[in-house]
Amino acid sequence: MAASADELAGRLARTRARMERDGLDGLVVVDPANLHYLTGYDAWSFYMPQLLFVPLEGEPLLIMRAMDAGGAHRTAATPPERILGYPESLVHRRDAHPFDWAAEQLRAHGFGGRARVGYEGEAHFLSVRSFLALQQGLPDWQLVDAHDLVNWVRIVKSPYELELMRAAGRVASAAMRAGIDAARAGARLNDVAAAIQFAQATGVDGAEGDYPAIVPMLPTGESADTPHMTFSARRLGAGEAVSIELAGAHRRYHAPLARTLSLGRPDAELERVAAVAAEGLELVLAGLRPGRSIAEVHAIWQSHIAKQGIEKPSRLGYSIGIGYPPDWGERTVSIRGDEHHVLEPGMCLHVIAGMWMSGYGCELSESVALTESGVEVLTDAPRELIVKEAS
Amino acid sequence: MAASADELAGRLARTRARMERDGLDGLVVVDPANLHYLTGYDAWSFYMPQLLFVPLEGEPLLIMRAMDAGGAHRTAATPPERILGYPESLVHRRDAHPFDWAAEQLRAHGFGGRARVGYEGEAHFLSVRSFLALQQGLPDWQLVDAHDLVNWVRIVKSPYELELMRAAGRVASAAMRAGIDAARAGARLNDVAAAIQFAQATGVDGAEGDYPAIVPMLPTGESADTPHMTFSARRLGAGEAVSIELAGAHRRYHAPLARTLSLGRPDAELERVAAVAAEGLELVLAGLRPGRSIAEVHAIWQSHIAKQGIEKPSRLGYSIGIGYPPDWGERTVSIRGDEHHVLEPGMCLHVIAGMWMSGYGCELSESVALTESGVEVLTDAPRELIVKEAS
Repeated sequence: MAASADELAGRLARTRARMERDGLDGLVVVDPANLHYLTGYDAWSFYMPQLLFVPLEGEPLLIMRAMDAGGAHRTAATPPERILGYPESLVHRRDAHPFDWAAEQLRAHGFGGRARVGYEGEAHFLSVRSFLALQQGLPDWQLVDAHDLVNWVRIVKSPYELELMRAAGRVASAAMRAGIDAARAGARLNDVAAAIQFAQATGVDGAEGDYPAIVPMLPTGESADTPHMTFSARRLGAGEAVSIELAGAHRRYHAPLARTLSLGRPDAELERVAAVAAEGLELVLAGLRPGRSIAEVHAIWQSHIAKQGIEKPSRLGYSIGIGYPPDWGERTVSIRGDEHHVLEPGMCLHVIAGMWMSGYGCELSESVALTESGVEVLTDAPRELIVKEAS
Repeated sequence: MAASADELAGRLARTRARMERDGLDGLVVVDPANLHYLTGYDAWSFYMPQLLFVPLEGEPLLIMRAMDAGGAHRTAATPPERILGYPESLVHRRDAHPFDWAAEQLRAHGFGGRARVGYEGEAHFLSVRSFLALQQGLPDWQLVDAHDLVNWVRIVKSPYELELMRAAGRVASAAMRAGIDAARAGARLNDVAAAIQFAQATGVDGAEGDYPAIVPMLPTGESADTPHMTFSARRLGAGEAVSIELAGAHRRYHAPLARTLSLGRPDAELERVAAVAAEGLELVLAGLRPGRSIAEVHAIWQSHIAKQGIEKPSRLGYSIGIGYPPDWGERTVSIRGDEHHVLEPGMCLHVIAGMWMSGYGCELSESVALTESGVEVLTDAPRELIVKEAS
């Protein structure tokens, strides 16, 4: 069920083609999603410095904490002799850094000569100290920002990956049902989150859950204008609205999904905005097709909401696939007016009509995969403002 | 229930005292735990660039994505006029970066002059691009690595914080009970994780749960030598051993806890190592007291296991408190032989006897707070290898 050798070889070949295009002799990969994509490696070891060095030719080298390197072969397809563990004594020291050791090993393995080497300038887990240690320890390298190079390779999913995305979508739909059931007047937000997290880990028949890169978000009542506030013991009130934004994850692949619930008769303004969002989402889903640019599809949305006198300054979605904390987005395309990337079959997007208005908010989204002629919707929940009787 | 103005003022004053000692005119803080500690700010917005600038004198400035800045006042005590939101158009662009904008704002607020400014070189969320944008946008700054300055301020907890740590310990103990109940022969690891995560979010009477910085770890059977592999749909086998490492979290404070279960009669070697670990942990807990150095306490452990012919190359624990993904440790003291930091009342530690042997593993830990004369144990579970009948 893990990615086949052919699948991994194809990913590496596409990465190297892009490296060649960009004039890179090597690439330092630290983003855990990119490590997973290229090698299969999967563990919660990314809070400590670790890297995959991808030379343009020859076998990559995986360098991580000794405690993690010993068992890395359980998930990584990298040959064991190409997995190196730095000593425990280098953990959290002011006077030495694991990447000093990594630089030594890279030199010892013949990678220390003059080379133009890319790094991931916006990756979450390439610390400034890590970067400076590479600069100092490999003085013949010309380090250049590779700008999410592997993320851009990931943007088109293989048939194998699409199966994982479909499974993630089924997990998301089940988690949303659990959230909708648990959200009621008087319930604490942390209890709603508990029900969602239980469903996220359990999964569904044929698709076990995995941990999502982000915890369930439950923007509520007046604070629904604050989309990324996490759950607390606040109780839902009768008549209040709550949005549920979550992802289903299956073997690190993510399908996010958002809905808004009204616990009792919705406020007229919320009802109006939710209806505009739902119509807009339908128009966008109908408009997504290979050959169109993202900007063209965004224009459909923009024209729709402008007619209703509604503004949405934030982006309408982004590319999805493998995710690790703290983000389930791929950090590549954003659905907005100045994104001219052209849609291709195999791309997966989270299309999110998130309307964070002053004093209330409304979220409605789907995860989709681009097909030859349109989209396949991966997630399933009533595509409307969900009204629950305040009981 | 949020930190009082006095509590926050004390934290800021201690941070500034350390800045002054280190010759810093300003400090760029990005670690979400440090942001929370200094301002109360709490949201899952750290996947996008954001910073708190702390000048040696005058009011700090909080800079984050506009979508998050609008509601930041809901958790941050920072005055609203000192919270700035960068435009959505700067999200995920190759040609511009939010910290270009942040640098402009810092100059506009009078912070652009000649100054020695610290940054967090090993923080997870200061990307290399963020760092380079500050370097370029504030050319009169001398940027120096502040080496986890605020993390070191956090090491001694206030009475207010100790109450939160105690609550986190109660949540951890409940989550461990849920994990022990769910772990049985035939159960899938993701279902054990689901039960733990449900308990972690629910919490206990008087202490609601919060999301822990790390998901439950369940090293199992032969792969118990791989401590950070996350859960899968693998089923527990009769006679197998499984370790459970988790944390209870309460309002961002964390108390980790680890135990090992044998599903049926334990292997003799596991039983022996578990007994040595349990005795060693008791000796260490009895040996922890203010005035002693960490190295002195580590020596108690080392001498105990050496007598039994057992080696443990990894550290015996670390400082704990506020946690955000991907780590619940504070990145300050590690319990090991060369750590000469002296124990003080109010320090909190996760003491973890983690024995990752070839082909099996055993973990036994407690979270503790240093008192005037010894330790208060924050977590509660049978302190031994837990044997469950394989049913």
